[in-house]
Amino acid sequence: MIEYEGKAKQIIPTAEPDVAIQRFKDSATAFNGQKKAELEGKGEINAAMSAAAFLKLESAGISTHFMGLENARDMRIKRLKIVPLEVVVRNVVAGSLSKRLGLEEGVTLKFPIVETYFKRDDLGDPLVCDSHVFVLGICSEETLAELKTRALQVNSVLGPWFNEAGLTLVDFKLEFGFDESGELLLGDEVSPDTCRIWETESGRRLDKDVFRRDLGDPMVGYREVVDRLGITIGGEHA
Amino acid sequence: MIEYEGKAKQIIPTAEPDVAIQRFKDSATAFNGQKKAELEGKGEINAAMSAAAFLKLESAGISTHFMGLENARDMRIKRLKIVPLEVVVRNVVAGSLSKRLGLEEGVTLKFPIVETYFKRDDLGDPLVCDSHVFVLGICSEETLAELKTRALQVNSVLGPWFNEAGLTLVDFKLEFGFDESGELLLGDEVSPDTCRIWETESGRRLDKDVFRRDLGDPMVGYREVVDRLGITIGGEHA
Ligand SMILES: Nc1ncnc2c1ncn2[C@@H]1O[C@H](COP(=O)(O)OP(=O)(O)O)[C@@H](O)[C@H]1O
Ligand SMILES: Nc1ncnc2c1ncn2[C@@H]1O[C@H](COP(=O)(O)OP(=O)(O)O)[C@@H](O)[C@H]1O
Ligand SMILES: [Mg+2]
Ligand SMILES: [Mg+2]
Repeated sequence: MIEYEGKAKQIIPTAEPDVAIQRFKDSATAFNGQKKAELEGKGEINAAMSAAAFLKLESAGISTHFMGLENARDMRIKRLKIVPLEVVVRNVVAGSLSKRLGLEEGVTLKFPIVETYFKRDDLGDPLVCDSHVFVLGICSEETLAELKTRALQVNSVLGPWFNEAGLTLVDFKLEFGFDESGELLLGDEVSPDTCRIWETESGRRLDKDVFRRDLGDPMVGYREVVDRLGITIGGEHA
Repeated sequence: MIEYEGKAKQIIPTAEPDVAIQRFKDSATAFNGQKKAELEGKGEINAAMSAAAFLKLESAGISTHFMGLENARDMRIKRLKIVPLEVVVRNVVAGSLSKRLGLEEGVTLKFPIVETYFKRDDLGDPLVCDSHVFVLGICSEETLAELKTRALQVNSVLGPWFNEAGLTLVDFKLEFGFDESGELLLGDEVSPDTCRIWETESGRRLDKDVFRRDLGDPMVGYREVVDRLGITIGGEHA
């Protein structure tokens, strides 16, 4: 039984009420669902990369929903009540930041910034500032501050991990949620679907922008990322 | 000599280097300049209303650039180095807030919110959150905090002034700047061009939305606002 069918993943219940399976699909979408494709191998790559990232973060003391891989595309996760915010960290100018603020793509920001977008497909996931978050009642001031701090901590762990592999973590999107006991955990995924990753030397795009902008076979870049990070597909390392 | 020709006003130098004339034009624009018209009498109404609002604010201890009216459409102002932010205070849902966040127009917010927009016509004045302001180097953390506090203070003064006249101050836009001595002052204007003003009882629009949305003769509402507030056109009260 599928409990939730998302754009890139499914959520499947298990016998344990606070545990679910997050299944990574090969489906790719962009521009809020307007562009679609099936990319063979994407689900397995994203599951493997997310698993490796969650392990990396856990070992740095950042709590996540990750409980282990069941198989190449299925991840056991702690069920969360997701805070409906896409928490975006940016190190280098790209995408909407470049367009909105007239900054040149590729310029390194003076410091990493955290943005929040209201998770509402029907509104196109609008940017929300702190006062919007509070007036909408999305979460408390305390939770918002904690989300931002955690997001920057994730950046401090993932950034060097990528750098050592010759990769630049340009920006990425996180989702957080509360577990049964009210603890805030990192949820969702960490993959080339949700991170902008450039080859440091060449600036070559190795992430979903290859799909968004028709820059070639997206799976070439996705595979290069996992290869460079030493991640094995199929779940045997998780 | 006109030093700066804006969409709704001109800035004209005087013999004193730190004093300028702000001339209120009859020109109206909307949608970032795409819609244009000449509205006879608008300049004089906006000059008179801005003068009255600045006097009201000054007497409440909020410093402004206002130095007096020269004539019905010319205002003597302290020359400022404008912080390139449109500081918007919202009490009731309207306009872009409604569209962006899917909130119903006319709903009173749980508390007033302050938004900041980067004053860049070429980018369409994009919404900026605090981290954008800092990473763009628009102003310091201290200045941004001060701008928001002042904007809410302005709201606390203007809100009741409007209410007592049977009007609701839905939202408004302010600009601030630094004078010669480095003091932060409220600049620009406070008028039905820059405030959303509704008749409290009926919800009737008395502001620039009448022009934006073709709801009738915009000057009828503008005149009603100054009449209700007891403001005389022509400068004799300033
Ligand atoms: N641990 C979790 N518990 C419950 N829901 C989760 C958890 N982690 C992620 N989710 C949610 O599951 C869905 C994952 O599927 P996805 O394809 O990304 O959906 P969407 O199209 O809504 O982004 C998302 O809605 C995400 O918020
Ligand atoms: N005290 C001041 N000193 C200098 N410039 C000011 C002052 N008050 C307002 N301004 C600027 O003067 C211009 C007023 O003209 P306006 O028609 O509103 O221009 P715009 O089309 O740029 O909004 C604005 O650019 C505003 O920022
Ligand atoms: Mg998703
Ligand atoms: Mg203006």
